[in-house]
Amino acid sequence: MMTAAFSFQVSATDGAARRGRLVTAHGAIDTPAFMPVGTAATVKAMLPETVASTGAQIILANTYHLMLRPGAERVAKFGGVRKFMNWPGPLLTDSGGYQVMSLAKLRKMTEDGVTFQSHIDGSRHHLTPERSIQIQHQLDATITMAFDECTPFPAEKNAVAESMRMSMRWAKRSKDAYIARPGYGLFGIVQGGIHENLRAESAGALCDIGFDGYAIGGLAVGEGQDLMFATLDHTMAHMPAASPRYLMGVGKPLDIVGAVQRGCDMFDCVLPTRSGRTAQAFTRLGTLNLRNARHADDPRPLDETVDCPASRNYSRAYYHHLFRCDEVLGLMLLSWHNVAFYQQVMKELRDAIAAQSLDAYARTFAADQAGGEAADDGA
Amino acid sequence: MMTAAFSFQVSATDGAARRGRLVTAHGAIDTPAFMPVGTAATVKAMLPETVASTGAQIILANTYHLMLRPGAERVAKFGGVRKFMNWPGPLLTDSGGYQVMSLAKLRKMTEDGVTFQSHIDGSRHHLTPERSIQIQHQLDATITMAFDECTPFPAEKNAVAESMRMSMRWAKRSKDAYIARPGYGLFGIVQGGIHENLRAESAGALCDIGFDGYAIGGLAVGEGQDLMFATLDHTMAHMPAASPRYLMGVGKPLDIVGAVQRGCDMFDCVLPTRSGRTAQAFTRLGTLNLRNARHADDPRPLDETVDCPASRNYSRAYYHHLFRCDEVLGLMLLSWHNVAFYQQVMKELRDAIAAQSLDAYARTFAADQAGGEAADDGA
Repeated sequence: MMTAAFSFQVSATDGAARRGRLVTAHGAIDTPAFMPVGTAATVKAMLPETVASTGAQIILANTYHLMLRPGAERVAKFGGVRKFMNWPGPLLTDSGGYQVMSLAKLRKMTEDGVTFQSHIDGSRHHLTPERSIQIQHQLDATITMAFDECTPFPAEKNAVAESMRMSMRWAKRSKDAYIARPGYGLFGIVQGGIHENLRAESAGALCDIGFDGYAIGGLAVGEGQDLMFATLDHTMAHMPAASPRYLMGVGKPLDIVGAVQRGCDMFDCVLPTRSGRTAQAFTRLGTLNLRNARHADDPRPLDETVDCPASRNYSRAYYHHLFRCDEVLGLMLLSWHNVAFYQQVMKELRDAIAAQSLDAYARTFAADQAGGEAADDGA
Repeated sequence: MMTAAFSFQVSATDGAARRGRLVTAHGAIDTPAFMPVGTAATVKAMLPETVASTGAQIILANTYHLMLRPGAERVAKFGGVRKFMNWPGPLLTDSGGYQVMSLAKLRKMTEDGVTFQSHIDGSRHHLTPERSIQIQHQLDATITMAFDECTPFPAEKNAVAESMRMSMRWAKRSKDAYIARPGYGLFGIVQGGIHENLRAESAGALCDIGFDGYAIGGLAVGEGQDLMFATLDHTMAHMPAASPRYLMGVGKPLDIVGAVQRGCDMFDCVLPTRSGRTAQAFTRLGTLNLRNARHADDPRPLDETVDCPASRNYSRAYYHHLFRCDEVLGLMLLSWHNVAFYQQVMKELRDAIAAQSLDAYARTFAADQAGGEAADDGA
């Protein structure tokens, strides 16, 4: 590595799983770590202090959303996303590539980059590896992501290969455009769909360029958990053991547990906060739909295994009432609980790795999730 | 008084204004006090801990809303509104009379009470003084309000007199139906519109019945501040000095300051939370509409004179961004700030009364409010 990036130390392993610590300019991150998503410089319906209180040590923000509103230059003027939103800890920004593909209109992609119209006001924008890295610098991201194309699934293998190779050329351009700072880092993103040789080629290309961490992109896009785990099984072998490995956009609690067992260190997903806004609670015993009438008279708290006021201090009946009345407090509390539940699981995973008991933990966790109440709510 | 109610001690006076303390079964309330409104067993977009952190010592909940959803019997099963919503402090419930008039459909009023259809699902309900008091008992209100008719404004004096006299008969029925408990109390409501002799007659009727506190109803219904203050000037003379005086549904900051100068002790209003949801900030220097483009690049906090994280830790530019993006955090933070601002003003009023400097405080406060930035936002 030529950059003065952050340090990453693995303190324990259990099978392929690792427990570690990433020390950045803005604080330490114990891994495996889950990053709540703060799309538009806010983890939706949560105060930054509340996010931190769950144990979250790093959050994610979206380049695509912030470049459109309030604009990268404006955020830069306020000292970056962290200062703008009053989040003192580390922050990771995605590159914008994924959101351009999933949200923007009238996209046109060339070797140079992608031109698109904003989904908000139709304004035209051009995003290239160089511009994405520049924006992420303006956003003052602790961890910057290389600009890539998230390959659609399913796709012909040739198309997957072409897309991956363009992403690797973009990765080189991202690296060249990146301005290294102590305690900051740049991650490359392995693509290649579900194909082992393409994933291996991609990982090799990124290692040749040299990054501070390596992400796995293009999963959790509809391939299903079996294929995702199979892809992780063969991809992990090609990813440097000394660097953090970030599985992007994953996922449900059991997805994360399985990915940790396969050696992934970092995760992000909108599920805990998005579900918090749609009355879906993640609990030890599976998911609950709190709008369901069966909760109307239930005095039990959401989940006493989670050390969080939102999990313990309010009855399911009260949650049901809040969601039935469309009260903002319902989604505030449930987003809080869901993020706290995710963080609790991450802590338990780290502890299980340190205790060399990860497989037993994973079996118990899966049994709890499946044997609980999920089926009742059709969740 | 035959009931074993709470104690109310006046510790200082300044002109007609009083500083006091109401000690209830659920905690003490320093007066003059502002009660944030928790309509449906939630102060909208605020955690109960956050409400308490602003200095609020008592909140209000609505009988009308709670009888419809989730139902008074259900709330009773959970130990009342306070336990249901996890608010440990004192709670006041209105009687439902005002909301029936302002929200319900197909109302029909008789001497017995009022029949109406729910604005939520059209279901039919009957509310009488006896039923309102019973519901408030089920809700475990620290302070129960007598059931009354909020006389419309404007109205013929004869109609106002008839309405007031029925409310007085209902007040007697409310008192008869009320089950007294130590540290709990029942308030009567003075009606009579803007007419001194009717207000005097109403206050006298209530004193004959005997209540633990006396409210002024039927103001802040469109008569304007001058007429409201004039009505307070003549009504206060007829209200017992030894009991707390509660001006219902008031108001803007300057309304409250003027009413405190005239001897009112308690207030409630949806303004701080409702405005918090519509991007209107109450500040020392007047109101701001945070959607206004002029805030987009403003690094200043909302109001550094308020000791609240929402007032000090976020720029106006960030607030503007949150409201432009319809982010829930915007209304969470602004509701918090607005309630904190109101509580800060109440504290300053209490301190000014104790220091015998209320008139000077009121002049400075009014000048700050008028000379500030309100005009710029057309607020």
